[in-house]
Amino acid sequence: MTDLFLTPRLIPILEQVKRFVLEELIPLEKEIHHGFHHISKIIIEEKRPKIRALGLWGLHLSKKLGGLDLSLVEFGQLSEVLALCPFGHYAFNCQAPDIGNYELLHQFGSSMQQEKFMQPLIEGKIRSCFAMTEPEFAGSNPVNLGTTAILEGDKYIINGHKWYTSSADGATFAIVMAVTNPTNPPHQRASMIIVPTDTKGYQFVRNISVMGDTGEAWSSHAELRFENCSVPKENIIGQEGSGFALAQHRLGPGRIHHTMRWIGIAERALEMMIKYALKRELNQGETLADKQVIQHWIAECRANINAARLIVLDTARQIDQKGAAAVKDEISMIKFFVPKIMHETLDKAIQVHGGLGVSDDLILSHLWRHERPSRIYDGADEVHKSALAKSIFKKYK
Amino acid sequence: MTDLFLTPRLIPILEQVKRFVLEELIPLEKEIHHGFHHISKIIIEEKRPKIRALGLWGLHLSKKLGGLDLSLVEFGQLSEVLALCPFGHYAFNCQAPDIGNYELLHQFGSSMQQEKFMQPLIEGKIRSCFAMTEPEFAGSNPVNLGTTAILEGDKYIINGHKWYTSSADGATFAIVMAVTNPTNPPHQRASMIIVPTDTKGYQFVRNISVMGDTGEAWSSHAELRFENCSVPKENIIGQEGSGFALAQHRLGPGRIHHTMRWIGIAERALEMMIKYALKRELNQGETLADKQVIQHWIAECRANINAARLIVLDTARQIDQKGAAAVKDEISMIKFFVPKIMHETLDKAIQVHGGLGVSDDLILSHLWRHERPSRIYDGADEVHKSALAKSIFKKYK
Amino acid sequence: MTDLFLTPRLIPILEQVKRFVLEELIPLEKEIHHGFHHISKIIIEEKRPKIRALGLWGLHLSKKLGGLDLSLVEFGQLSEVLALCPFGHYAFNCQAPDIGNYELLHQFGSSMQQEKFMQPLIEGKIRSCFAMTEPEFAGSNPVNLGTTAILEGDKYIINGHKWYTSSADGATFAIVMAVTNPTNPPHQRASMIIVPTDTKGYQFVRNISVMGDTGEAWSSHAELRFENCSVPKENIIGQEGSGFALAQHRLGPGRIHHTMRWIGIAERALEMMIKYALKRELNQGETLADKQVIQHWIAECRANINAARLIVLDTARQIDQKGAAAVKDEISMIKFFVPKIMHETLDKAIQVHGGLGVSDDLILSHLWRHERPSRIYDGADEVHKSALAKSIFKKYK
Amino acid sequence: MTDLFLTPRLIPILEQVKRFVLEELIPLEKEIHHGFHHISKIIIEEKRPKIRALGLWGLHLSKKLGGLDLSLVEFGQLSEVLALCPFGHYAFNCQAPDIGNYELLHQFGSSMQQEKFMQPLIEGKIRSCFAMTEPEFAGSNPVNLGTTAILEGDKYIINGHKWYTSSADGATFAIVMAVTNPTNPPHQRASMIIVPTDTKGYQFVRNISVMGDTGEAWSSHAELRFENCSVPKENIIGQEGSGFALAQHRLGPGRIHHTMRWIGIAERALEMMIKYALKRELNQGETLADKQVIQHWIAECRANINAARLIVLDTARQIDQKGAAAVKDEISMIKFFVPKIMHETLDKAIQVHGGLGVSDDLILSHLWRHERPSRIYDGADEVHKSALAKSIFKKYK
Repeated sequence: MTDLFLTPRLIPILEQVKRFVLEELIPLEKEIHHGFHHISKIIIEEKRPKIRALGLWGLHLSKKLGGLDLSLVEFGQLSEVLALCPFGHYAFNCQAPDIGNYELLHQFGSSMQQEKFMQPLIEGKIRSCFAMTEPEFAGSNPVNLGTTAILEGDKYIINGHKWYTSSADGATFAIVMAVTNPTNPPHQRASMIIVPTDTKGYQFVRNISVMGDTGEAWSSHAELRFENCSVPKENIIGQEGSGFALAQHRLGPGRIHHTMRWIGIAERALEMMIKYALKRELNQGETLADKQVIQHWIAECRANINAARLIVLDTARQIDQKGAAAVKDEISMIKFFVPKIMHETLDKAIQVHGGLGVSDDLILSHLWRHERPSRIYDGADEVHKSALAKSIFKKYK
Repeated sequence: MTDLFLTPRLIPILEQVKRFVLEELIPLEKEIHHGFHHISKIIIEEKRPKIRALGLWGLHLSKKLGGLDLSLVEFGQLSEVLALCPFGHYAFNCQAPDIGNYELLHQFGSSMQQEKFMQPLIEGKIRSCFAMTEPEFAGSNPVNLGTTAILEGDKYIINGHKWYTSSADGATFAIVMAVTNPTNPPHQRASMIIVPTDTKGYQFVRNISVMGDTGEAWSSHAELRFENCSVPKENIIGQEGSGFALAQHRLGPGRIHHTMRWIGIAERALEMMIKYALKRELNQGETLADKQVIQHWIAECRANINAARLIVLDTARQIDQKGAAAVKDEISMIKFFVPKIMHETLDKAIQVHGGLGVSDDLILSHLWRHERPSRIYDGADEVHKSALAKSIFKKYK
Repeated sequence: MTDLFLTPRLIPILEQVKRFVLEELIPLEKEIHHGFHHISKIIIEEKRPKIRALGLWGLHLSKKLGGLDLSLVEFGQLSEVLALCPFGHYAFNCQAPDIGNYELLHQFGSSMQQEKFMQPLIEGKIRSCFAMTEPEFAGSNPVNLGTTAILEGDKYIINGHKWYTSSADGATFAIVMAVTNPTNPPHQRASMIIVPTDTKGYQFVRNISVMGDTGEAWSSHAELRFENCSVPKENIIGQEGSGFALAQHRLGPGRIHHTMRWIGIAERALEMMIKYALKRELNQGETLADKQVIQHWIAECRANINAARLIVLDTARQIDQKGAAAVKDEISMIKFFVPKIMHETLDKAIQVHGGLGVSDDLILSHLWRHERPSRIYDGADEVHKSALAKSIFKKYK
Repeated sequence: MTDLFLTPRLIPILEQVKRFVLEELIPLEKEIHHGFHHISKIIIEEKRPKIRALGLWGLHLSKKLGGLDLSLVEFGQLSEVLALCPFGHYAFNCQAPDIGNYELLHQFGSSMQQEKFMQPLIEGKIRSCFAMTEPEFAGSNPVNLGTTAILEGDKYIINGHKWYTSSADGATFAIVMAVTNPTNPPHQRASMIIVPTDTKGYQFVRNISVMGDTGEAWSSHAELRFENCSVPKENIIGQEGSGFALAQHRLGPGRIHHTMRWIGIAERALEMMIKYALKRELNQGETLADKQVIQHWIAECRANINAARLIVLDTARQIDQKGAAAVKDEISMIKFFVPKIMHETLDKAIQVHGGLGVSDDLILSHLWRHERPSRIYDGADEVHKSALAKSIFKKYK
C-alpha cells in the first residue's frame, strides 16, 4: 500500500479506525443473518459510543460541525478501511446516502434545512434517503423523470414512482428529485425537495429483494410512490430547476467514497484469499499457495488494487485542489475502472475458497452479491465510458 | 440452434417438453419466494400428472423402466430445454443427484437395491442424495476422505462429516462415499453405501446457506454427520473399494446433463437480454438494442453458446458411441468451457437489465447466484484444466 | 479432434494431404526468408507434380473439372490440414483469392470467361486477384466505392484506386469491383469486371508492406490504380449491378476456407507449444510442462480450438445442405469467433517459447504477424457482431 | 495526465523534450525502412547537436557528469515522452542497454572502467551491449548460465554462447555475465566482465531476426559466441561472484525506464486512435468516433494508461526515497501490469485503423511487433507474478 497520500495527522486516525473495524465490527458479521435492524441496534447502542469516546466521530465533518476536518484524499483512505466490514461506514455514520445528503445540505441547504434535517443526520439520530431513479425510465438518461412537484400555494404537490431509493427503510426524510419546471431546457427541469417520510401521500411500497436479500434498515433499496404528497415550498433545496446541478455536486466526493469503499472490499477479499491459500492443504505439505495459478491470481489482484487506489486517490487530490468540475473525466474513469477490479478480486477469492467461498459462512458471498450493482448504479459503466470518450474527443476537435 | 443432433423421434418430444416448460413451469417462478417445498408440492400434485398424461414421463429411462429410451445426445438436448426453468428437471424427475443415483443403481445396484431404492426413485415417490464432499478435505483431491465405514458382522458402521450433500433435505436415502479399505491403494479405498436417512446416527446438521439462500427440498445443500451410523452390509453398491470406479461411471453422463443445463440457462438469459434490449427505451425512438456495445454482447453470447452446445453434444455423441472412458479429455473440457460462457451470458444479461437485473423480480439474480458454484463443484475448473493438459502431454511423451 | 464430420472417402485423402504438408512443405519453411517467389518456384517445379502424381490435385474442384468433388464440409477439413504450413493452400492451388475467383467464374462466368480465365486458373498456370477495398472508404461499409466503370461503346473504362488487393503481384487478371450504375439503389450499383493485368491503365503501385514484410508473389497485398483502363464489355461477370450479390456468393464458402485455415494455424501453434513445454528444462527434471499456468493455457486453447472447429464445420454442413443464405448468421459468427481463438493460441505459443518465440527462427512470428489482419479483412469483427445482433433482433421484432 | 509527480524544474524540460520529439524525431520515422544505421547517422549528425544546443543533453546524468541531475521519478516522466518516437531515447542517448551499463559503471566501475568505458558512453561516442541471456537455458532461471570466465594469470578466458544481446551490432564493448566461481552458492557464481568487441574470440554470429526485422545498429538483438576470448582481469566489474547482485542494482531504475517507455508508446497509440476515429468517415456525417464500441475502447485505454502511469511513478518515487530493495514487489508488479496495457492499446489502435493499421505505412505495426517481447524479456511476466505472490505469502507466514 502506497504511503504517497498519507498525511501526518491521518496516520494515527487511520490506524485507530482500522483497529476498530477489525476488532469491534468484523466480529459482528456473524450476526448478519439476524438482519440489519439487529446490527444497527448493536452499533447504535454499543459501538457508536465507543467511537465517540475514541474521538473518531465525524470523520467526514468539518471542525465547526464537530468533525475532523479531513480533506477528501484523507477521508478516502479512511473510507477504504471502513469498507473492510460491510457496516464500517454505518458505524462511523459515514454511510451513503446520508453522507451525500449531509454534504448537499451543508453546501446548499437553508438554515432551516440545516437545523431541522442536517443537524440530526450528522448526530446520527436519524437517517435519510435519496429518491431519484424511476423504474419507468432508463437510469442512463437521468433527464427523463416522471415524478412531478407542482407548486400550489406554498406547497409542492409531489406525484411519482421511485425505486432503488436506498436506505428508505427507517429513514426520517427523503430528498426527492422531481420535475418542477417541465418547460425549461432538459437539465433545468428538476429540483430536489425534502420530503419527511411521515408526510401523507409518501408511500413505502416495499424493500426490493436484491441478489437474494430483501435487506432492511440502511442496508436496503426501496420502491416508493408519491401520491399527492404535499410539502412546504421551503423544503426545496436551492432554486427551482437546480436539481441536476446539485446532483453534479454530490457526484465528485460521492464517487471517491464509493470507489475507496470498493477498494477496501477488494483488499479484504484479497487478504482472505491469501490466508486461505496458505492454510488449505491439498496433499501432505502442499497448500493452495503452492499452485501457480493461484499465485498469479494473487499477484494480478495485488497489482490491480494498487493501481486502482492510486487512480482514485489522485482524483481525490485533484478534487481537493481544483474542484470536481476540473476532473470530471477522472471521476468518470474511476467509476468503471474500480468495480471491475473489485469484482475480479471477489470472484477469485470465492474460487480459491471453493465450496466455502459460495456459502454464506463467509462474507465473500454477501460482498459478491451486494456489490454487483456497483457496475450499474451511479450511471452504468457503459454510460461513463461513452461520456469519457466524448469528452476526450472534444479536446481533439 | 443447430439441427445437427436432432433425431426424428426427438423433434416432437423436444417441442412438447419446451412448450410445457414455457407454459406450465416458468409461470410458477413467481412463487419461488415461497420456497421450494411449496414449488415441489405444486409440481407433484399438478404438474407431474400432466407430464405423465402427455407421455413425457421418464425422459432419461430405458423403455423397460417405462421411459423413452433416449440416447445421451438426445437427452442432452432435452436437458437444455428443461433448464429454461430452474425446476424443469425436477418437474420431469430428471434432477441431480437423483438421476445420477438412478443410473448408478441401474447399472451396478443389486436386485434388492433396485427394487427398494431405485424403483421408487424413478417413480418420483422419493428423493435421494449423494454424500461425497467433506469440509476438511480439498475437493480437488477426491482420494482424501475422512469418512469411514467399518464392517462389523453384517453391518457397516459409518462415521464421518459431509457437506454440500445436495438435496439431502427431504431425501429418503443417501449414497455415502466412505473408506472401507484403508490399506488399499488410494483409488481403491472407498466404497459407496446406501444409507436410509432415518438410520440412527445419520445426522442432518443444516442446509448450508449458499449465495444468500438457505434452500430447501431438492434445491438445497446439506451438512451431514454420521455417528456410528449402522447399515446392513448388502447396502454397499458393487464391491468394496469400488467407490471411485463407480464415481467415474456417474461422471460422463452427469457432465452432459449439467453442461446442457448450463446451456439452457445461458439461452434463457440471452433471450431475456434480447427482448429487454428491444423493449427498453432510452430516448424517443431509441432502445438499448440500438447500442452497439449491447449488440456486441448479444453477438458474442450467441456465438459462445452455439459453440458450447456443439462441443457438449459432440461429446455426448461420442459417449453414446464409444463410452465415456474414450472421451475423458472432452468430458474435462466441457466442465470448464461451458460455465464460463454461462456466467458471461448471465452477467451481461444482468447488466442490460440494469436495476431490474440485480433485483429478485427477475430470475436472473437467482441463476447468477446459484450457478456460481458450477465453476467449483464436480472438480474446480482449475483441476480439470490441469488434468486435461497432463492427458495431452501424455500423448506426446 | 472430432470424427463427427469425417466421411469414408475423406479419411484417406486427409491423411495423405496431411502427410504431404508435414513431409514436403513444412521443411520448406526454412527458405521463407528467400521470399515467396523462391518458394513458389520450388512448389511449381517440384511439389505440384508430386501432388498430381498422388492424385491430390483439385481438392476444391468438381469431378468434371478434374477434381475430387468434395463437399464444403469435407474441403473444410482439408483446409485445416493445408494450413499447417503457410504455403499448404498454395501448393495445392487452393489459395485465396484464386479459389474464390474460381468459384465465382464457375458459377457465374460466361463460357468465354470460364475458358479464358477459369481454366488456366484451375490448372495452376496463372494466378488472379480480387480488387475491392479502397483506401478512401471504410471497409465496414462496402457500398461506398469510388472506382467507376463506364460503358463506352463495347468497352468499360475503369478509373479508381484500390488497395489490399491480395496476390496482385504476379497475377494475370484482376476481378475488379466498380460502380457501373451509380443511380441504382446502393446495393445494385457495382459490378465485377475482369481486368487482365497487362491492360493499359492498370497500374501496379506497390506491394504494401504489412506487419514488417513487403511480401511478394501470391503472399502480398497490392495497391493498384486504374486510369482509363479499358476492357471489353463481355468481361463483366453476370449482369450490371450484380456486384454485391455476387460478392455474397463468394462469402459463404470463402468464410469456411478462411476459418478452417485459422484453425489449422491454431493447431500448429498449440502443438508447438505442447512439444516445447515438454522439452524446455527449467531446472533439473522440471520442464515448462510442469508449470500449472502453461497447463491451463494448453487446456484452454485445446477446448477453444475444438469448439471453433465444430462451429465452423457445422456451418459448412449447413451451407452444403441449405445454401449459404440460410446460415448467414452462422457465417457472421465464425468470422469473429475463430480469429480471436487463433490469436490467443498464437500469443500463448509465443509466450511459452520465450525469446525463441518472438524470433523469426520459428514460424510463430510469421503467423502472429500475418494473421493479425484476420480480425480486419472480410469485414472487421465489429461489423459482423453488429450485423449478427441486428439479424437476431429482427427475429424478435 | 496527472500533475502529481511534476516538479517545477521538470515542467519546462518536459515540454522542450516533448516538442523536440514531436517536431524533430517523429518526422524521421518515415525513413525507418532505410534502416537504423541511416536513422542513427541523421541523429548523430543533426539531432544530437541540436539537443546539446538546447541544453537537453544528459537527461539521466548527474550534474558532475554534465547532466541535469534529475530524480528517477523526474526522468521517468521524460522517458514516457521520449518513447513517443521509437528513437527518442536514442536521440537523447538514454537508450537501453547503454543507460543501464552507464549506471552500473557509474556506481560500481573502477576509475579505469569509468574513464575508458563509461565516459565515451555518456558522451555518445560509443555504444555498448549487455550479454546475459543464453539460448540453452530458460531465462526464467537466471542462475543457470553456461558461459564461463576462467582466470588464467591476469586474464579472464571467456567461453560461451549468448543471444538477445541487444544493440551488440556496432557496440564497442559488451558487459558479459559469466560464471567465474562455479563452486559458490548459485547466486554468487557469476561476474560481470567488460569485453571490448574487437577482442579476439568475441564472435558476432548474427542479428537475430525478430518479428519480421533483422534490425541493425542499436535497434537489434544479436547472437554472440565467446571462444577463448581473453580480457584483462581488471575488466571485471566489482568483485568476483557479484554478478547477480549487480544485476539487481540495474533492475530498479531500468524497470522504470522500460515501463515509462511502454506508457509513452501506449499514449502515442491512443492518440493515433482518437485522431483517426474522429477523421475516418463511415457514412455521411458519421465517423468511427460515433461508434460506441470504439468510444469504450478509448475510455478503457485512457483509464488503464492513467493507472499504469501512477503505479510506475509511485514506484519510482519510492525508489528515490527508499531504494529499490524496499519496493521489490512494486518493481515486479509494474513488469507485468504495464506491458498488458500497452499491448491492449496497440491492438485496439490497429483495429481502429483497419487495413492502414496493419500496414507499415503507420508506426503501429512496428510498435506492436517490436514490443511483443516486453512480456518476455527482463523476466517473463509469469515469473514476476509468481515472485510477487511468494513475496506476499512470506509476509503472512
